[in-house]
Amino acid sequence: MTLDDPIAVLGLGLIGGSFAAAARAAGVKVIGYDHVAATAARALELGLVDRTAPSVPAAVTPARLVVVATPVGQTRALLAELASALAPDAVVTDVGSTKANVMAAAAEVLGPALERFVPGHPMAGRERHGPDAAEASLFRGRRVLLTPGPATSAAALARVRAAWLAMGATVTELDADTHDRVLAGVSHLPHVLAYTLVDELAAAPDASLSFALAAGGFRDFTRIAASSPEMWRDVALANREALLAALDRFAAHLATVRGALADGDGDALYRLFDRAAQKRAQWSES
Amino acid sequence: MTLDDPIAVLGLGLIGGSFAAAARAAGVKVIGYDHVAATAARALELGLVDRTAPSVPAAVTPARLVVVATPVGQTRALLAELASALAPDAVVTDVGSTKANVMAAAAEVLGPALERFVPGHPMAGRERHGPDAAEASLFRGRRVLLTPGPATSAAALARVRAAWLAMGATVTELDADTHDRVLAGVSHLPHVLAYTLVDELAAAPDASLSFALAAGGFRDFTRIAASSPEMWRDVALANREALLAALDRFAAHLATVRGALADGDGDALYRLFDRAAQKRAQWSES
Repeated sequence: MTLDDPIAVLGLGLIGGSFAAAARAAGVKVIGYDHVAATAARALELGLVDRTAPSVPAAVTPARLVVVATPVGQTRALLAELASALAPDAVVTDVGSTKANVMAAAAEVLGPALERFVPGHPMAGRERHGPDAAEASLFRGRRVLLTPGPATSAAALARVRAAWLAMGATVTELDADTHDRVLAGVSHLPHVLAYTLVDELAAAPDASLSFALAAGGFRDFTRIAASSPEMWRDVALANREALLAALDRFAAHLATVRGALADGDGDALYRLFDRAAQKRAQWSES
Repeated sequence: MTLDDPIAVLGLGLIGGSFAAAARAAGVKVIGYDHVAATAARALELGLVDRTAPSVPAAVTPARLVVVATPVGQTRALLAELASALAPDAVVTDVGSTKANVMAAAAEVLGPALERFVPGHPMAGRERHGPDAAEASLFRGRRVLLTPGPATSAAALARVRAAWLAMGATVTELDADTHDRVLAGVSHLPHVLAYTLVDELAAAPDASLSFALAAGGFRDFTRIAASSPEMWRDVALANREALLAALDRFAAHLATVRGALADGDGDALYRLFDRAAQKRAQWSES
């Protein structure tokens, strides 16, 4: 299978810019678009794209594969705008961290092109963002989750899968609701906890001393608190129900731990810490 | 100032073993003791110590500097045992992650030797533990906190400070209550949160898929959940009041975040995430 060529990338931040760079490295022509003109200009200057387009339709019309790589909050409007410009054989994918909401939006605005839409989620976030953080190797060895719905055609799925494999990623398929529920726990919740901890400590009377004395464990634990606030606000809102459920399960478990601590119940604390340490070590080795 | 020689190290895990190895590397003779005979034998085999002693008094009697490097829960009993064996000019320090409780124990059991006890806390934890994780370079560039009390003599403080500086560490002095309050927030609380998250996810119906899909952000966030459960149970119990206060402040702030999410208040989420991201990025650069 040859790769779709040319590709339009809408949104030229870390993920879009890296996809563009990887596609160019694979010999595919890339047309870029970003609603922030300076971002588009910077992506061109960095050589992430072959050329930039002045509008969404101008970027999309010639493309055989369209990648929507904007924050999740803008996806619906962008899909609506690109639907009428899409070539008859073009395939569309996205890179959003939540999938049920993207699929619902796509079903409402894509019309007959819905069968050529393949929802995707490359798990390649990092704390830096913007086109300057982009690199062609970002997806090598990373996992990409695809959540095709009942309307998604097998041919469109195969084409998007092939593009990710060409970038060195591994591809896993699962349904959108499972995706959102699982990611709420292992990704969205940790981001909320890290943001909350940093914000709470920064507001405390001991803030200066706290940050002066914080060490390596704190550094790793809070690394994700440096992530894009715009992206994570959109993710939190888009996956609100699953994230609230994950937050409530966590808060309930934390209340149990607090109770054991307040009771001075060292055995209960040990059992919980030991279970977690074994699970974490076992996962790390897998 | 020449370093105290010989040194007795009681407890030959990561921290004690690394202290021993660093002291040997600086040309100081090191006598090791561990109440687990296999740990002592392993430390000797690894060359972390010059020789091992069969009892606490046998290790302590010839030493000019005694380092207590057991889990915090054993510190009091060990101080009581070593008090009568201590040479008249010997200095004692410890490496516990909490300090007010250690100082209270020392005041009760050390008698006249209290003025020669310097409470310490090297911030050099890592997820691996035991003598096999020890290395002479562990403290290079790391921060060591010393919390001398009103009884601590200036001479004893200077000798312990010199030992840490010789190992490449930087030394900061602060009072024990401030130490415990600040560390509850930036170290003990993150450990509890990481343990709690891993344990909660491991017990959920989606556990296998969750861990299969967990990525780099989760890896960093939960790295500290692989830490020694025994050590962290002892730390949590030893610093119970400050940790409960930190937990409650965090839980209250998390409830605020939950409220904003439940209300769909994207502006409030953005403001909080943005404040945290800026603070985290600014700290990272400092």
